[in-house]
Amino acid sequence: MSDGVEWGVHVCVLLAGLPEDAALPAGKLAEYHGVPAAYLAKHLQALAGAGVLQTVKGARGGYRLARPAAQITVLDVVEAIDGDESAFRCGEIRRRGPMAMPAREYTKPCGIHQAFMRADEAWRSELALSTIADLLVGVLSDVPRPTLEKGARWLQESAR
Amino acid sequence: MSDGVEWGVHVCVLLAGLPEDAALPAGKLAEYHGVPAAYLAKHLQALAGAGVLQTVKGARGGYRLARPAAQITVLDVVEAIDGDESAFRCGEIRRRGPMAMPAREYTKPCGIHQAFMRADEAWRSELALSTIADLLVGVLSDVPRPTLEKGARWLQESAR
Repeated sequence: MSDGVEWGVHVCVLLAGLPEDAALPAGKLAEYHGVPAAYLAKHLQALAGAGVLQTVKGARGGYRLARPAAQITVLDVVEAIDGDESAFRCGEIRRRGPMAMPAREYTKPCGIHQAFMRADEAWRSELALSTIADLLVGVLSDVPRPTLEKGARWLQESAR
Repeated sequence: MSDGVEWGVHVCVLLAGLPEDAALPAGKLAEYHGVPAAYLAKHLQALAGAGVLQTVKGARGGYRLARPAAQITVLDVVEAIDGDESAFRCGEIRRRGPMAMPAREYTKPCGIHQAFMRADEAWRSELALSTIADLLVGVLSDVPRPTLEKGARWLQESAR
């Protein structure tokens, strides 16, 4: 999994805390998270392309969530950034060696591939249970008040 | 996930089909699966180190399963080869930027990290449900009889 996934989820949680209609420019999102702006920009574009974020044009422009935080899951962010391919790469090695058969005989994935597909589904189902709104609630309850206030001041100065 | 995981599971399923007390040398396992012997050797050693495979010394030596196939799960193979680290790498980026706090304040993983830990557990739990014995049963029922017979002849000639 790419680093971009962690960054992308953090970005969404931060944007979920913005007042409605406010947006944050890419540079500010990179500054807030202390990550390289050029790399983050690539992931922000992927999130916008997938309909998770929305770009707002103009002097007060930047990024904001494309829909309510309760309707964006962690899985949405993962798939926007890393795609929906399983971590298991099936090399179809069953087709090699002395038990190899003509290609037409392989009509379904082998049991090994199927076991990893089921595991991948379990992984995705679990990530589909966490929404950005849930994560924001967690931050608000876990982070000490003075730190939250510092963050809120920074947001107020930075949001457009 | 490394290619070695796919190879390792295939190796275990093949070894599960050997007569009791027979073993296959590393070179034969590489030949059977059509994979580079040097890379496979590394993974076979990892599987032996984790107690999934057993090495048999001597002229009739090689690798065999260290315990009954019904007691080896796909997860055992994954963890022997790729370890038990989650695919999600937490860079703790919450500790950067304007809301950063002193290190002592971070007493538990953030909600994002926790969501990925839960997903990782779901992935591993699913892989722990499939045993090498289950996979062998699948191969025996899916693969056409003539191919199985070809494989059995190869095994008979190659096993020690």
